Amino acid sequence: MSKLASFKELMREIDITSNIMNTLSWDMRVNLPPKAAAYRAETMGFLSGKLYSMKTSPKLYELCGELSAVGNNDRITARMIKEALKEYKRLTEIPQKLYSDFTEHNLKAELVWQEARAKNDYAMLKDSLVKEFDYKRQFAACHGFAENPMDGLMDEYEEGMTTKKLDKIFDELKASVKELLGKIDASSKAYDKTFIFGKYPIDRQRAFCKRMVGIAGFDLLAGRLDESAHPYTTGNNKYDIRMTTRYFENNFTNAALSSMHEMGHSVYAQNHLDDLAYTTLDHSPSFGWDEGQSRFFENIIGRSEPFWAYFLPMAQTYFDGLYGMKLNDFYNSLNAVYRDPRRLDADELTYNLHIVIRYELEKTIFAGQVSFDDLPDAWNLKCKEYLGITPKNDAEGVLQDMHWASGYIGYFQNYVLGNCYDGHLLNKMKQDIPDMYDQVANGKFDEILGWQIRNVHTHGCFYNPEELLERVTGEKLSAAHYIHYLNDKYSRIYKL
Amino acid sequence: MSKLASFKELMREIDITSNIMNTLSWDMRVNLPPKAAAYRAETMGFLSGKLYSMKTSPKLYELCGELSAVGNNDRITARMIKEALKEYKRLTEIPQKLYSDFTEHNLKAELVWQEARAKNDYAMLKDSLVKEFDYKRQFAACHGFAENPMDGLMDEYEEGMTTKKLDKIFDELKASVKELLGKIDASSKAYDKTFIFGKYPIDRQRAFCKRMVGIAGFDLLAGRLDESAHPYTTGNNKYDIRMTTRYFENNFTNAALSSMHEMGHSVYAQNHLDDLAYTTLDHSPSFGWDEGQSRFFENIIGRSEPFWAYFLPMAQTYFDGLYGMKLNDFYNSLNAVYRDPRRLDADELTYNLHIVIRYELEKTIFAGQVSFDDLPDAWNLKCKEYLGITPKNDAEGVLQDMHWASGYIGYFQNYVLGNCYDGHLLNKMKQDIPDMYDQVANGKFDEILGWQIRNVHTHGCFYNPEELLERVTGEKLSAAHYIHYLNDKYSRIYKL
Repeated sequence: MSKLASFKELMREIDITSNIMNTLSWDMRVNLPPKAAAYRAETMGFLSGKLYSMKTSPKLYELCGELSAVGNNDRITARMIKEALKEYKRLTEIPQKLYSDFTEHNLKAELVWQEARAKNDYAMLKDSLVKEFDYKRQFAACHGFAENPMDGLMDEYEEGMTTKKLDKIFDELKASVKELLGKIDASSKAYDKTFIFGKYPIDRQRAFCKRMVGIAGFDLLAGRLDESAHPYTTGNNKYDIRMTTRYFENNFTNAALSSMHEMGHSVYAQNHLDDLAYTTLDHSPSFGWDEGQSRFFENIIGRSEPFWAYFLPMAQTYFDGLYGMKLNDFYNSLNAVYRDPRRLDADELTYNLHIVIRYELEKTIFAGQVSFDDLPDAWNLKCKEYLGITPKNDAEGVLQDMHWASGYIGYFQNYVLGNCYDGHLLNKMKQDIPDMYDQVANGKFDEILGWQIRNVHTHGCFYNPEELLERVTGEKLSAAHYIHYLNDKYSRIYKL
Repeated sequence: MSKLASFKELMREIDITSNIMNTLSWDMRVNLPPKAAAYRAETMGFLSGKLYSMKTSPKLYELCGELSAVGNNDRITARMIKEALKEYKRLTEIPQKLYSDFTEHNLKAELVWQEARAKNDYAMLKDSLVKEFDYKRQFAACHGFAENPMDGLMDEYEEGMTTKKLDKIFDELKASVKELLGKIDASSKAYDKTFIFGKYPIDRQRAFCKRMVGIAGFDLLAGRLDESAHPYTTGNNKYDIRMTTRYFENNFTNAALSSMHEMGHSVYAQNHLDDLAYTTLDHSPSFGWDEGQSRFFENIIGRSEPFWAYFLPMAQTYFDGLYGMKLNDFYNSLNAVYRDPRRLDADELTYNLHIVIRYELEKTIFAGQVSFDDLPDAWNLKCKEYLGITPKNDAEGVLQDMHWASGYIGYFQNYVLGNCYDGHLLNKMKQDIPDMYDQVANGKFDEILGWQIRNVHTHGCFYNPEELLERVTGEKLSAAHYIHYLNDKYSRIYKL
């Protein structure tokens, strides 16, 4: 076998093994009989070990070097080499013992978090958090960073992102959002999100959501929509993309928008270039980009008035309780701005502040400016500062998210980065498709999805996050377009 | 690592990999998006290649030899070595090229079979069948056999089984069944299977079947009941046993009995000794034994009058159409004896003759006593001889089963062997639990299932088929007990 063929075969094995893990993870969340948990954990551990060995194999590393030295590689091969080396570096920089200790600690810390949140007992979780941040500080040191340990962590999720770049974006964004919030407070309009609440039979929600995502562009012959405790989308080959949602009987828009969110991830994955199969390149270039697509379909499209101009009449054929509800009332209720201490219950606007709170706290922790004893108070102060409210307890304050206990530190910013990418994309798309919202109002999604496919999805991870943005829009990342979108949207809703 | 630990680790990897394949096969049948077929086929091929390499690895072979030479192995290790060597021998006896040609041919031949059956065109399939039998003749030669090529094939499914042993059993069985059929023909009673037919909503069938198998002993926390085109049960770790059925709106007993059938396979798999996990020993010793358990729960229990004495009143709470139906009428209709050329539509009694037809034809083909040109006529003659009817065309004659086209030759006898094992087991169980059918009539299955667990399930493949039978009953395999069961059952139903 030639060196090139050997290299591609190793990458194919990595691709298949990693997709097997994804399918089994999906199965674990959607189908696994309760008693099978231990055996499945062992299976996942086995595969994860195999995958680690494959990705860090000296043979793969050597082949990358040899093929690079020869040069003259086609663009797919060249990118595969780059990605393989990046992954090799990322994995081998962390000593194996440190990594397995960290993984083991996460599993335990997640369970501690579950109990601590249920009991509203921060003290119970404190030591686990200390350890998590300590592990991550060590990881940052292993990877190396220019100025801030956070830089050494964020790069894994968003290549090239630094606190310096992010601070600028977040500062601009939070000032604008706070200003907009002030105007909304002062406005004469007030909407109630519970206006939509009612009784929506779950089997009808299932049917509606499946039909809706099918119309909006999800290929149901190359994917599935199922249910799990936490909605998510599996990574896999483009013809087998599975997403989940969850249903609440009192509010069908919860499942509808979470389906649209996951659909954003899914259509991204369903529309990579065919040639990227088996190369490991068939994924997005970053968490921010992936989150950008999910939020584009959830918020920019799914929370827009034209979207419901088309889908509300359809929803009314599924749910008796919606009969007679006016589009404008429905739309205003769906977009009502609230001050809620819980991120997962936040509206589209204040959501950004929830993320800023977490990002800034992470920075102060790494800078040693806050102790873990004082963290709940620091959280509450930030919450008061940005959202104007104080959580009534730690369960809805510092304990609300599992991320830190699971080792996701230096991660939250991806959600807002996704919003910023969306601002850029929407601005460009409106230039290219001036009647895009008229199309949405008529249930036509082909041109919009086609634009995303052509500009974003098809490329997989061929370009770095910044390169891709520049390629699509000619611009550098900023919050400006997204802020414009927010101002425009809420000014209309609240007649500002 | 010690030799013993290395050996166990290799076996653990084989176990996990093979169960991953089982889970992915289940997923393929139950969940796979249509467009994902090609990628999944590639994944299965990849895993199957890995599994082959593991099972035929020189290192595993050496370790088996070294551990055997040292001796002094505990009973689990000793059996693992025996099984590993048997599998090594079975796989390495067939040249890899021959095996992969055969596998590739099967995939094509199955598609040809589908079309040939749909078009009722035997000529279309003939060449594929010639090849299949030729491959199997070569396989038999590779494995070696004493008298008949069939002996070299059947051993894979039922260790130690030969045509000589089987001819004796089948001759006795077919004579008895034919005699019994004659008496039924002469009887004054006649029952109509369509008496049960009606309209049974499928979502209610789902709920009923799940409840029924739960009561009968299937552990729903360690398994699932889903749907697929062909009902089956996945092999896997005992805590993750998944079975499928399929539903027909006009007859709920179809899904109910197929669920009971699969439940027999499933409870077998759910009740192996815990210590057998990761050893590859957690499966039945043979297809005949596995089929014995499925047929025990489908026929001996599930088609019995006491079973429906308990479940018919429950079914009547699910299905309006059953309201007022009398147990005796229901039971007689469920067990009505028919002359139908199709195996899958056969009643419990004539089913045995369908298998005899296939087994005898396979023998005559290997003996060169029938050409493939004459095979359809030979089939029809056998059918006339044993069932008294002639298929109206090849689609319901020689083309009805996919087995031969899929390479399952020397396989059909397992179904009847299962029945014969059941005769032995029922005879012994009645001695040990004299009121077993009273218990069934009261919805009590614990003692019966406990007996099967203790005597059969727990052992996995610790004993060869013949050893296990002797251990449980002290007897050698014969059709006598099963014939007694049939005579007893149908004499009552038809008042013979």
